Amino acid sequence: MSKLQFTIHATKWHARAGTVTLNGKTFQTPCFMPVGTKATIKWLILDILRDPHYIGEDLPPIDIILANTYHLYLRPGSKLIKEAGGLHKFENWPGLILTDSGGFQAFSLGLSKTTKSGKPLASLSEDWVKFKSIHDGAFHMFTPEGTVDIQAEFGSDIMMVLDVCSPPGISDKKFRRQMQMTHRRAKRQYDHMEKVYDKVNGVLFPIVQGGTNLELRKESVEFLSKLAKDGIAVGGVSVGEPQEKIQQVIEFTGPKLPKEKPRYLMGIGDPINIPYAIANGFDMFDCVLPTRLGRHGMFYTDQWYQKIGWAKFKNDHSKLTENCNCYTCRNFSKAYLHHLHKEREMLGASLLSLHNIVYLHRLVQNIREDILATGTTT
Amino acid sequence: MSKLQFTIHATKWHARAGTVTLNGKTFQTPCFMPVGTKATIKWLILDILRDPHYIGEDLPPIDIILANTYHLYLRPGSKLIKEAGGLHKFENWPGLILTDSGGFQAFSLGLSKTTKSGKPLASLSEDWVKFKSIHDGAFHMFTPEGTVDIQAEFGSDIMMVLDVCSPPGISDKKFRRQMQMTHRRAKRQYDHMEKVYDKVNGVLFPIVQGGTNLELRKESVEFLSKLAKDGIAVGGVSVGEPQEKIQQVIEFTGPKLPKEKPRYLMGIGDPINIPYAIANGFDMFDCVLPTRLGRHGMFYTDQWYQKIGWAKFKNDHSKLTENCNCYTCRNFSKAYLHHLHKEREMLGASLLSLHNIVYLHRLVQNIREDILATGTTT
Repeated sequence: MSKLQFTIHATKWHARAGTVTLNGKTFQTPCFMPVGTKATIKWLILDILRDPHYIGEDLPPIDIILANTYHLYLRPGSKLIKEAGGLHKFENWPGLILTDSGGFQAFSLGLSKTTKSGKPLASLSEDWVKFKSIHDGAFHMFTPEGTVDIQAEFGSDIMMVLDVCSPPGISDKKFRRQMQMTHRRAKRQYDHMEKVYDKVNGVLFPIVQGGTNLELRKESVEFLSKLAKDGIAVGGVSVGEPQEKIQQVIEFTGPKLPKEKPRYLMGIGDPINIPYAIANGFDMFDCVLPTRLGRHGMFYTDQWYQKIGWAKFKNDHSKLTENCNCYTCRNFSKAYLHHLHKEREMLGASLLSLHNIVYLHRLVQNIREDILATGTTT
Repeated sequence: MSKLQFTIHATKWHARAGTVTLNGKTFQTPCFMPVGTKATIKWLILDILRDPHYIGEDLPPIDIILANTYHLYLRPGSKLIKEAGGLHKFENWPGLILTDSGGFQAFSLGLSKTTKSGKPLASLSEDWVKFKSIHDGAFHMFTPEGTVDIQAEFGSDIMMVLDVCSPPGISDKKFRRQMQMTHRRAKRQYDHMEKVYDKVNGVLFPIVQGGTNLELRKESVEFLSKLAKDGIAVGGVSVGEPQEKIQQVIEFTGPKLPKEKPRYLMGIGDPINIPYAIANGFDMFDCVLPTRLGRHGMFYTDQWYQKIGWAKFKNDHSKLTENCNCYTCRNFSKAYLHHLHKEREMLGASLLSLHNIVYLHRLVQNIREDILATGTTT
């Protein structure tokens, strides 16, 4: 019996409007999940993401956020978080939490630095990712089974497998080898989950890989669809490849994923690719972009993003955007936000981050309502 | 007819519990006013200071905050704020706003720096404070009448006179000369206010000076009490003198101020001096300390303040303080706040700043309730 129930209310072409129920909580799909890397969404009090006063009376609360296993495993440590009663209690979040496996950061942060003798700070095998901590240089290791256990210690609701995220531009042969490693590891992790499924809080999603090679993507979808008990993800998209390749993979893989499971497109969270991916059957999205842009003074508008520091905003007493009902847009002018940005007042970054998260939340809600109103009821 | 009504409900020794009504809004006294220097309380969304979810169901909302004329005059400028509809609208604050005259910062920030030829960046005369902007070095000038007009452009509810704040340790002769300059300027500003009283939003408070010399304090109280139409302030306290001198001035001046006016002790906002000053008849307090301590990882407890970065808090799953009902204390452990501090996550500074403001807000409320319950009803 699956812990996760997914109900599809309506479809429109490949797009679906649904509801996920898990551990007595729900979230509506399609959905955008803000990223709370180190057990906090940067610059925001979490409660305001569930408060109509801040996100707007016309929007449902945000019900699911992300956290990063790599960072939390190193600091403050999964043991401490377990001792605190789990991540939900630690960070006081009443909604659901999805965690990644940590493998992506362990490897990418490790590879970007080298030891004195020129060796990268991370290495990879069938059985593990070994890496040096970015904090103190101590060696750590993630194993397929181990990352499930760490995520279980967090009390994560949706856990992710330890995949191999291939960078773009490697040979097809290497792409295939890494994809197959992802598959074998996923198999091990599902075998492990079999044993602990009833003891842990979360469910496990596998991650489709294969880079920009559509043959490999097809193979990966077919292999992992058989394992995917509760949901499935597509990874390795938007990791440096050109936009047309991103859209090609979205368009190709989306419709091939199991219809009755929630489908999560990892790391994609911009106003262009989200609608495209929903149209191709994806249900869940996450991205650090809304908060990263916000704390650097950038905000989403219907004409892509703009910078609040631009001189033309100094005397502009109009609101950020016309169609947004968030706390920032309802109450503050560009002139005020420009002033906060110029004075490096933290409130500016908070208010822009809030607007950017709500902007994407509204975007997916509008699409959801359109699917419900004009799609085929199921 | 005064725009400000002050009702005293009960007294206990010199202490008073009252209500101030001004421009259709009210605040209860004694009160602690958080400081919003540049039209924002650092690290906090202003609305949360009025929300029971954040300050605690058992406390009234915060009804009055400060803003600094010096900073706002330079950036974004009083003209722009007037154009925006005033400071309340600019920063979206529905409560009352008190502004200082800007003279203190113009002079102290100016004196702390010198030009290449060794001259201080500020100078002082009967008629003005001239100073170079900390931003671009441009020359500016505050005059007694001019600072009233600037504060009126902000739409300030309570404006302060352009006093001379004497540093400790100068000769009695110099203390007297500077105090007399404060008096003559105050007289000019009240003459100016006479003409504009019905056209501006605010009322004007004079500022008692005289340093640690009690004879001068007496003289200053007597002179300024005659001018004080709506309220009166005591300045130049806690500017570097020892604690016993601070208490001496509080104890000496408080009871001598006009009984029927709100009495504001400027810049004092710590858990030791606030109760002492209330006992000696002061009603209003402000200080940057709660937010400054908060963003450096410090928090008030009943044993003075502590640092969240201390190693002993790493595994401490208890709340910050036992008797506080603020959002931070209700929902987060020291271990979580320690984690945020170590990771330099901004939320840590926000949550500690909130706690520190609520801590002082609660402190004055508790004293107010005690005066109402056990004092003499008036």
